[in-house]
Amino acid sequence: MMKFALSAVLTLGAAMSQASGLIQPIEPYTSPTPAKVELGKMLFFDPRLSKSGFISCNSCHNLSMGGSDNMPTSIGHDWQLGPINSPTVLNSGFNIAQFWDGRAETLQEQAGGPIANPGEMASTHTLALDVLRSIPGYRQAFAEVYGKDSIDIDQVTDAIAEFERTLVTPDSPFDRYLRGDKNAISAQAKAGYELFQSTGCVACHNGPALGGTSFQKMGVVKAYETDSKIAGRSAVTGNEIDRFKFKVPTLRNVELTYPYFHDGAVWDLAEAVNLMAELQLGHEFKAEETEQMVAFLKSLTGKQPDFKLPILPPSTVETPRPNPN
Amino acid sequence: MMKFALSAVLTLGAAMSQASGLIQPIEPYTSPTPAKVELGKMLFFDPRLSKSGFISCNSCHNLSMGGSDNMPTSIGHDWQLGPINSPTVLNSGFNIAQFWDGRAETLQEQAGGPIANPGEMASTHTLALDVLRSIPGYRQAFAEVYGKDSIDIDQVTDAIAEFERTLVTPDSPFDRYLRGDKNAISAQAKAGYELFQSTGCVACHNGPALGGTSFQKMGVVKAYETDSKIAGRSAVTGNEIDRFKFKVPTLRNVELTYPYFHDGAVWDLAEAVNLMAELQLGHEFKAEETEQMVAFLKSLTGKQPDFKLPILPPSTVETPRPNPN
Repeated sequence: MMKFALSAVLTLGAAMSQASGLIQPIEPYTSPTPAKVELGKMLFFDPRLSKSGFISCNSCHNLSMGGSDNMPTSIGHDWQLGPINSPTVLNSGFNIAQFWDGRAETLQEQAGGPIANPGEMASTHTLALDVLRSIPGYRQAFAEVYGKDSIDIDQVTDAIAEFERTLVTPDSPFDRYLRGDKNAISAQAKAGYELFQSTGCVACHNGPALGGTSFQKMGVVKAYETDSKIAGRSAVTGNEIDRFKFKVPTLRNVELTYPYFHDGAVWDLAEAVNLMAELQLGHEFKAEETEQMVAFLKSLTGKQPDFKLPILPPSTVETPRPNPN
Repeated sequence: MMKFALSAVLTLGAAMSQASGLIQPIEPYTSPTPAKVELGKMLFFDPRLSKSGFISCNSCHNLSMGGSDNMPTSIGHDWQLGPINSPTVLNSGFNIAQFWDGRAETLQEQAGGPIANPGEMASTHTLALDVLRSIPGYRQAFAEVYGKDSIDIDQVTDAIAEFERTLVTPDSPFDRYLRGDKNAISAQAKAGYELFQSTGCVACHNGPALGGTSFQKMGVVKAYETDSKIAGRSAVTGNEIDRFKFKVPTLRNVELTYPYFHDGAVWDLAEAVNLMAELQLGHEFKAEETEQMVAFLKSLTGKQPDFKLPILPPSTVETPRPNPN
């Protein structure tokens, strides 16, 4: 018998009948504070938030590449290889929590993490603030957005988070289909969407982002084989029952966010589909069905970030210098 | 007696009287092949041209940061620290040759270098081409631009070079001043411009980019003290007389392209001005004059790159995978 860990009590039948209600189109996000978005965008692209001056948020959440880095695990300060796959920042505002294990409750809380992580940007909040406070262009931008002549870390992460909220990807073919344009996706993709519902994928991959709404065990029916030592959600809750539970990743733009899973071990979307069916649902797709599923998943690629490359304000002689060591 | 190594035979007096003719405003560049520019822009931002999948042209010639990386020397593959300061890519089309030692005659020839340099992007042209050829989005873009169903390295570097030609920075306050708007720069900057001519800086820093027109010895009147082992132009010509000669760097956007000199040893623009005067011209500026020079140099900051962040076409299962090792 198949097992589901969906928080809400749903039988497979109920999940099927409610499937179209379980997935919503992505709505464009119009920020009430556009100046804050522009400031957050600058910060997102600024490598001076790292100790080396070489790594920015965009290094591992590359907005030219689906908001990810397309590597199994990320490269950090001093070329350290991280322990986990970089999740896409696109549509991350829909997540119930941030990071694979949900250790940050909000986008704002998340944004402060990598800056001070010795294996990632390897700075400190104190150093990052010293950098920003030394730069007249930033002092002016923060003053305009926050109405005071001081810069603190809550402002920095608030601005980054507001920029990230704009990183939604509306207008995918699938969303146009959901909204009534029956020709927006192919017959193959439609068959894949049917399978996505009937097989039970939608039980976990739901909400506007088709994911990000719950933590689920990686390997429900059958264990996932991995070299990764990452414990998952149990590292946050301290409960052994949460071992190998991870936040369900979004399927939006999944054709852009390879390689897949928390260890980035699988590069082929078809292989990822089959593995998920096997490990989570005890199901085996026929070859034709896998192709249908992949066609459906590719219809989830929406409008990518559409803005001008930000120009960063220059440092001054007072600015703490980049330190690659 | 002061010495000049200007290729053209110019006395100081002649340089002074001809000074306004020695510097031209930057003209905007309109490419005859906009599709090639768009392709080159994608390539410029694509870290898949590096072995690791982490380093792009934009990593060290960051178009958000004056086309440089604002580090003494660049970080390359496996966190190797390079031997020389990353020169700005902005206005590099005006240079008589590329790299500090001029070892590449053209932008196109330069573009192939870092891709295959083991200390920089650490790929090979063969591997980079295998990557590009495996990506349908690139196959289509190259076919549209070059009219054939094959991708070679000359196309890759040609497209990058055409994109780089667009990276000019017109409309600086100084250019508006040169064109007749006498209020475009401050009285202080005007005094600096007078000093720039009368002291002899313009003898080397001339042309539309205020530099890039000749190779000159670093340390004409007095030797430059540095820990750098870089030989300069002699590494290209094999002539001992070219030791410590470097391509004169552009002064356009110089307030954005710190730290200064081929070893990136000087962070303060005022200090760089005074050192150049002392070492190259045997001249000492008064404090007020240095401030005037800096005001003039800051008037050389022009319009920065103004385009949308490129979205890169996704890899496929055939694409050679990034390799951080």
